[in-house]
Amino acid sequence: MAQKPSIPKGTRDFTPEQVAKRNYIFNTIQKQFELYGFQPIETPSFENSDTLMGKYGDEGDRLIFKILNSGDFLNKVDDKLYSKKDSNAITSKISEKALRYDLTVPFARYVVQHQNEIEFPFKRYQIQPVWRADRPQKGRFREFYQCDADVVGSNSLWQEVEFIQLYDAVFTALKLEGVTIKINNRKILSGIAEVIGASDKLIDFTVALDKLDKIGEEKVKEEMLEKGISKKGIEKLQPLFTLSGSFNSQVVQLKSILNSSEEGKKGIEELEFIDKAISELGLQTATLKLDVTLARGLNYYTGAIFEVSAPEQVQMGSIGGGGRYDDLTGIFGLKDVSGVGISFGLDRIYLVLDELNLFPETVTKNIDLLFINFGDKEGLFSLKAIKQLRLNGVNAELYPDAAKMKKQMNHANKRNIPFIVLVGEKEMETESYTLKNMVSGEQVKLSLTELISKFE
Amino acid sequence: MAQKPSIPKGTRDFTPEQVAKRNYIFNTIQKQFELYGFQPIETPSFENSDTLMGKYGDEGDRLIFKILNSGDFLNKVDDKLYSKKDSNAITSKISEKALRYDLTVPFARYVVQHQNEIEFPFKRYQIQPVWRADRPQKGRFREFYQCDADVVGSNSLWQEVEFIQLYDAVFTALKLEGVTIKINNRKILSGIAEVIGASDKLIDFTVALDKLDKIGEEKVKEEMLEKGISKKGIEKLQPLFTLSGSFNSQVVQLKSILNSSEEGKKGIEELEFIDKAISELGLQTATLKLDVTLARGLNYYTGAIFEVSAPEQVQMGSIGGGGRYDDLTGIFGLKDVSGVGISFGLDRIYLVLDELNLFPETVTKNIDLLFINFGDKEGLFSLKAIKQLRLNGVNAELYPDAAKMKKQMNHANKRNIPFIVLVGEKEMETESYTLKNMVSGEQVKLSLTELISKFE
Repeated sequence: MAQKPSIPKGTRDFTPEQVAKRNYIFNTIQKQFELYGFQPIETPSFENSDTLMGKYGDEGDRLIFKILNSGDFLNKVDDKLYSKKDSNAITSKISEKALRYDLTVPFARYVVQHQNEIEFPFKRYQIQPVWRADRPQKGRFREFYQCDADVVGSNSLWQEVEFIQLYDAVFTALKLEGVTIKINNRKILSGIAEVIGASDKLIDFTVALDKLDKIGEEKVKEEMLEKGISKKGIEKLQPLFTLSGSFNSQVVQLKSILNSSEEGKKGIEELEFIDKAISELGLQTATLKLDVTLARGLNYYTGAIFEVSAPEQVQMGSIGGGGRYDDLTGIFGLKDVSGVGISFGLDRIYLVLDELNLFPETVTKNIDLLFINFGDKEGLFSLKAIKQLRLNGVNAELYPDAAKMKKQMNHANKRNIPFIVLVGEKEMETESYTLKNMVSGEQVKLSLTELISKFE
Repeated sequence: MAQKPSIPKGTRDFTPEQVAKRNYIFNTIQKQFELYGFQPIETPSFENSDTLMGKYGDEGDRLIFKILNSGDFLNKVDDKLYSKKDSNAITSKISEKALRYDLTVPFARYVVQHQNEIEFPFKRYQIQPVWRADRPQKGRFREFYQCDADVVGSNSLWQEVEFIQLYDAVFTALKLEGVTIKINNRKILSGIAEVIGASDKLIDFTVALDKLDKIGEEKVKEEMLEKGISKKGIEKLQPLFTLSGSFNSQVVQLKSILNSSEEGKKGIEELEFIDKAISELGLQTATLKLDVTLARGLNYYTGAIFEVSAPEQVQMGSIGGGGRYDDLTGIFGLKDVSGVGISFGLDRIYLVLDELNLFPETVTKNIDLLFINFGDKEGLFSLKAIKQLRLNGVNAELYPDAAKMKKQMNHANKRNIPFIVLVGEKEMETESYTLKNMVSGEQVKLSLTELISKFE
């Protein structure tokens, strides 16, 4: 008996409508990337295992999909090791390649491998799928696209300014107005930790602070106490919990907290530069907001930290994020290359646009015109017209069989084709085309020239 | 010590220039697909192993990349089987998923799985990577893109007519003029085998005939004799070796060979229908040619067989192929769904376009304008202009640091940026922009409006 077909859990088939909507997002982002001077690269779907392993922590290592070696793969496993029947120990002997887990590590590998061909600063974007052996759940997949833009080889804060504008440009182009671009700086977090005497507890401190939105001030303080941050230190934090007002006035308040920390002051200086530039340049539809609780992948970022929230009317986590990191390529032996980058959460952006009904109608239309098939002679006559239509950019096709009229009409309706064309004996004699609007039922007789000019 | 980075053999990194050129091919093909009424689908990169295994023959099964199960994968292997240390026997116990080997089997799986949502005839296209554990060699990769268009659920010969026009439309749009679209029909090959009394040796017969171009008439006859085809049968083939003249006159000669085979006559009838339609419709730059030696994947095809050759001045194998198959979805339990489809050989098309210098220059250009950075004030002034340029569709950027002029000019040259803009004190005072042509060295002072209208 034939198998009942299915796909692996956590993966998806995309229907024509879904592909069209996804491509609309990809193309819109891509266009803005290119206006901003970013260039595309692509890396292989699988990398050598040692390129990926050890770069994402133990949990990451477990979630990387490993590819089984071809041929007699057990041949390479010595009998002693084999006899232990230890999955962990045997993996590296029977698998040398693994599927990409994100785009960042392959990008770092690319930069190091191609460093002599690359002109720095190098602005690249990359839109490709990644794979993670995560437990599948709502909105979390084992195969999904990432979409990253990064600049490497430049310490300039203009890059941060550009990325904020780029976020604004992309979401404006997607007609998703009212997103909030939150910004913070690792140096500010370090500065605060220093001021409250918790420099050695930076991670614990930021993990707790990051929860302010969710659990509130009191619980955050409790957690900090539990983690060993002194009561006196926590008291110094008080102004943080009540930061308010404009970006600028918040910065003023932060300054008073951080006046004894060089690193903190540096962070403030960076924020001020960025805020001043963005104020002067203006954003089209997004808002820039200082959020001192924002930490994201703190170990990773060394300067600016970004996160984008969807407009308030939508319940959705962040739809983008990024920041500056100072040693991306060090893991592959190229030191002192500063990078800064952002990413877009494509699956979530898709959900937001769908919920707010922001996909343009034209995105999912397929063909404009279906020619009804009345037989071989009529079919050939129709295909000649269709050829001219296509040469003028009009999507058109002939129903493939001289089936019953009703069946052909049904086909047009099921595919949401807005117009059909009827070509019978009479039309062929007079070289005319009867165009029927499938919604209104209205019919009109046109010459080929008229038909083309109506749709091109 | 840091690892020296590399990628697995048979895979490729694509540089910005290569991605741009590949995207040009993808986009051009995609545009024609949509004009012809094809809709995109996408399927997961990996399928359940039992979806793929057994569909491509033993050799195919070996070349499929298998994904190792996550977690303690050896736990599921019983000790008795484990003790045999037999790679083949253990594979299905430690691997349940595998990377896509082509787009055809996943498409068949998709059609069966989604049959209730699909409106037939279903015209789909798919452009995605596939993976094969083949021995890497020149022009053969372990990861490469396939690009397929198929119609399922229609027996109409108009589909064959449409596919020939589609090939012509795509290669014309790519400016690759002079390709030859070769056509044959499985029924003609079966008919000939029947006439010469070798119906049971159809494969041997066609494999030998397929070599006519390479080894010549005598050797082909020798091989047929060796394979047990009778001398008398081979004599009846004589007219085949001297087939000449127009498509139509070759058909007349074929008819005389095949007048005793019903199947053969049916094949001729199909060819004649297609040839007549194409003659009436005309092709833009391609030529349709009958090639009775064309067999391709004969077991697979049941009607028309297509293959496209690059223009004669280029040494290259086929750059496309396809045909009609009558039971694509049967393997997954959906019977009697006829399909016909074509594919494009993307890597070879890339090589041909490169060799003939057919990529438009605009494909690989990145930004139009680099603003030289003279400091923070000038930078901000420049970014305001850049914002306006981008809103008008002009790719522009600011050099991120106020580095030495020479360094910034070098950067523009290395990235092949055609124009730079100089904004210093004077320009800021007069709200003007000095535009410098990097090739001619010519300089001109413009207002922002003039600058925009020059590049938009």
